[in-house]
Amino acid sequence: MHKVIFDTDPGVDDAMALLFLHRHPQIDLVGITSVFGNASIETTTRNALFLKQAWGIAAPVAKGLGEMFNPGRPHIDWPTGIHGHDGLGNIDVPDVIDLPLDPRPAHRFIIDTVRANPGEVTLVAVGRMTNLARALREDPEIAGLVKAVVIMGGAFDVPGNITPAAEANIHGDPEAADAVMTAPWPVTVIGLDVTSQTVMTRATLADIAERGGKAAKLLADISQFYIVFYEQHVDDGMVIHDSCACAYVVAPELFQTRSGPIRVLCGGIADGQTIQKPDGRLFPPNAWDGAPSQKACIGIDADAVLKLIGDTLANGR
Amino acid sequence: MHKVIFDTDPGVDDAMALLFLHRHPQIDLVGITSVFGNASIETTTRNALFLKQAWGIAAPVAKGLGEMFNPGRPHIDWPTGIHGHDGLGNIDVPDVIDLPLDPRPAHRFIIDTVRANPGEVTLVAVGRMTNLARALREDPEIAGLVKAVVIMGGAFDVPGNITPAAEANIHGDPEAADAVMTAPWPVTVIGLDVTSQTVMTRATLADIAERGGKAAKLLADISQFYIVFYEQHVDDGMVIHDSCACAYVVAPELFQTRSGPIRVLCGGIADGQTIQKPDGRLFPPNAWDGAPSQKACIGIDADAVLKLIGDTLANGR
Repeated sequence: MHKVIFDTDPGVDDAMALLFLHRHPQIDLVGITSVFGNASIETTTRNALFLKQAWGIAAPVAKGLGEMFNPGRPHIDWPTGIHGHDGLGNIDVPDVIDLPLDPRPAHRFIIDTVRANPGEVTLVAVGRMTNLARALREDPEIAGLVKAVVIMGGAFDVPGNITPAAEANIHGDPEAADAVMTAPWPVTVIGLDVTSQTVMTRATLADIAERGGKAAKLLADISQFYIVFYEQHVDDGMVIHDSCACAYVVAPELFQTRSGPIRVLCGGIADGQTIQKPDGRLFPPNAWDGAPSQKACIGIDADAVLKLIGDTLANGR
Repeated sequence: MHKVIFDTDPGVDDAMALLFLHRHPQIDLVGITSVFGNASIETTTRNALFLKQAWGIAAPVAKGLGEMFNPGRPHIDWPTGIHGHDGLGNIDVPDVIDLPLDPRPAHRFIIDTVRANPGEVTLVAVGRMTNLARALREDPEIAGLVKAVVIMGGAFDVPGNITPAAEANIHGDPEAADAVMTAPWPVTVIGLDVTSQTVMTRATLADIAERGGKAAKLLADISQFYIVFYEQHVDDGMVIHDSCACAYVVAPELFQTRSGPIRVLCGGIADGQTIQKPDGRLFPPNAWDGAPSQKACIGIDADAVLKLIGDTLANGR
């Protein structure tokens, strides 16, 4: 079993990833922490509670703070054209969900949970890296107590999506992402190199909705708006970015990784770009020296990952 | 016939590229302009004259200026471990070569030659982009009068060589390179994506030296120091970066290119990185908007390029 804290900004593909974590038999979802990105922190937190309620998820929801790691950075508009005004594909999520939040802010929840389960917790972070960076800053020792960190974000050998250089999650808080990538904990980064190859067709999603009961039906409803947005990028269906990171936790053998220190550009025209120095390559002294080797995913068995995700979403437990 | 001005910082692989241009029957080498990079401007200019004399090259040599496009940038040490203290593999190049220089500075020579041959001149630039950027600044109209610009530099979908992000030619004068890439002339960039795949073995070089007479023998002598340096990067032989750009002029069909605006990062930990926005990919407004589409080489038939270069070097005309 993998004890997972899911740090998320639901978000349409976040919703799919959450249902995957909830339904996979080897995942013990011990907490959900909200972060802003796909929508404001109020909206993503409300959406996390909505999905918890709709799907009967036991894990507590802890709300993240609403500001970037470097508070001087300008606000980036929420991507309502991708995730809808409500962050969940314009399905008319109720304004208020009658469920309690964990009393702690997200970063404190992460610290407490990691300290209570030393060596056991995997952090799966699929939004901006804000909460993880805050947890690290407040308690750097957690780096040695976490089992693994799995991130959806970045773009290594391929273009970004928010700019030609940068992927949106990392671009949304580059200083936080650089702190997370360079901390002495084992990070695997699942970026656009592999997620953009992982497209669930409308037909597959409809089949999952048919087989997976009410929960899967809700997921399919949430996803339609996002699928229409993606018509400009893929032939048919949804790029399931966040679910790829969750699939990695239970099936890392379906991914190819490359090891080496990873830095995030902060500022300039490529703000938020992720750059890895592959281990074994020699360079004169540079800004990657001294940073720990992390894993960047550069290959995926997309068909097998799609099957794993589809089967997991369809099989309620 | 291709009228070529060769902008170069000889430099060991520059020397090979120069002999290729001199010996290829479809190249009319109309000028050699020196730039600093592999060594100081005094050394590279002296080396250009040395090779002109040794190989009986008719084209004039015009000396570049000795400072970067942004003169506030700090000096980067010359890579004497790669090209030798004399810039030509420590073969004891004479201090002074008894041949006249063209009286004009390199950028003025470029402007005059382009204006005298409108639509006919191909600029092949295999050092820092300093001279080309100066020529553009002094006479922006030449952008519309040049036939083509072919650059050896940059790294698109692969790591750099001077840092994990940047290739040395572009890193050596990033502001100049950004000016060259974003000017309205047709640029093809032959970077590490393809040159690092193009390795001439010791055996092949020895064969060329045997077949190619005194000129090729000198080239082989020059190259030995560089080959020893490259032992840390390749199994056997020399990466023939600069010759790839020359091969492109006469045999573009041996290369695969990708179109899209190219920008160069100026400053920060990835200083000098080349980033292309592939044409047809959609992004929110960004710093690539409005820049002309240029070609980045992302594939090469390395065996065919090596054969073309080897045959040309070996066949004196």
